[in-house]
Amino acid sequence: MTTGIRRRMGVEERRQQLIGVALDLFSRRSPDAVSIDEIASAAGISRPLVYHYFPGKLSLYEAALKRASEDLAGRFVEPHEGPLGARLLRVMRRFFDFVDEHGPGFSALMRGGPAVGSSATNALIDSVRQAAYVQILSHLGVQDPPARLELVVRSWISLAESTALIWLDGRRIPRGELEVQLVHDFAALAAVSAAQDEEMGTLLRGMLKDEPDDGPFADLVTRLISLAS
Amino acid sequence: MTTGIRRRMGVEERRQQLIGVALDLFSRRSPDAVSIDEIASAAGISRPLVYHYFPGKLSLYEAALKRASEDLAGRFVEPHEGPLGARLLRVMRRFFDFVDEHGPGFSALMRGGPAVGSSATNALIDSVRQAAYVQILSHLGVQDPPARLELVVRSWISLAESTALIWLDGRRIPRGELEVQLVHDFAALAAVSAAQDEEMGTLLRGMLKDEPDDGPFADLVTRLISLAS
Repeated sequence: MTTGIRRRMGVEERRQQLIGVALDLFSRRSPDAVSIDEIASAAGISRPLVYHYFPGKLSLYEAALKRASEDLAGRFVEPHEGPLGARLLRVMRRFFDFVDEHGPGFSALMRGGPAVGSSATNALIDSVRQAAYVQILSHLGVQDPPARLELVVRSWISLAESTALIWLDGRRIPRGELEVQLVHDFAALAAVSAAQDEEMGTLLRGMLKDEPDDGPFADLVTRLISLAS
Repeated sequence: MTTGIRRRMGVEERRQQLIGVALDLFSRRSPDAVSIDEIASAAGISRPLVYHYFPGKLSLYEAALKRASEDLAGRFVEPHEGPLGARLLRVMRRFFDFVDEHGPGFSALMRGGPAVGSSATNALIDSVRQAAYVQILSHLGVQDPPARLELVVRSWISLAESTALIWLDGRRIPRGELEVQLVHDFAALAAVSAAQDEEMGTLLRGMLKDEPDDGPFADLVTRLISLAS
């Protein structure tokens, strides 16, 4: 600015800059508490110019949420190599990184933020859940999941969401412990379903057959045995 | 009507009648699809008279939701007698009764219905979750729960919600199986947490000490052992 030279940004470049600035603000404080004036000021432009690119705060919020959704869905992608438990644990670490980076915005969104009820917002949340679901099935090597497996995977995804939300509320438990816990929870929910249903039992045995003796699943079994004794 | 005599209802009585009629319609079809005309017709009064009691569909929806919330919270109340697993199973049966009775309305609400984003609606949903949380703690005999127990109970409540929602989407798994599964899930999530934390281990041993050999928790252990062998 002080050089007196200010490069003019193209329309798309400016939109992307505004989305980045807004996402950063929405991540650090509840989106309800962030004003267009603040976004304009952080972007170094005037309030009317923000409205030139986005008709209102909701459209800017939705654009920021879209970028965050794509970011999060990208973090679910994990190479199909090595034991399943270790893969899931790496994904959980990246999930908690995301939750950590976007804490207030994530809480506000999932607890009913400014754009909840907007069908665009709900569709974005569902698209991230679906991305997680598709990734998990692909790692399990299942193309046409039986209803019980779909239930285990989808309900575990909602368990991961609520675990992250509860963690954000005070951060009273170390996140590393919760990352491992969610991997264990997945195995536990699958085991409960497998205990009732033969098809799930076969699937679970397939999932666990390549788990190493020092992996998170073996770790859970060891701990449960010591708990029971 | 044909007698020519029509008793006049008092204001509160009429309001309660309209709430009942609306709740019944909102339970059978998505609330978005129910019109004020339909509610008026089902109540046997004119559309303007509905507006006399409720300024709009949202306020009638919120009143119906309030009644349903109180109904559901009431079903969580269970005598403090007998083994914990059997108590939780009875509550799960009543929970699925409720979900069954209010299927389309429950789905629409939890997936983002007409009044989502309304703070009154969110507060009602949270009050039901809180009622469930308080009941569970009281049955566990815990007054001041450690963070890990709070996490297990609250995240299990969200698991119960998502399990019910997934069940409603096609009803591909018998509800009786899911009622038992949720009791098992509670024990499994508590066991996972207990495997990592000594305080939770002590709590879990206390929870399980009075479980009978033919109760749902013992049933789970038997099934898991047969699965592992």
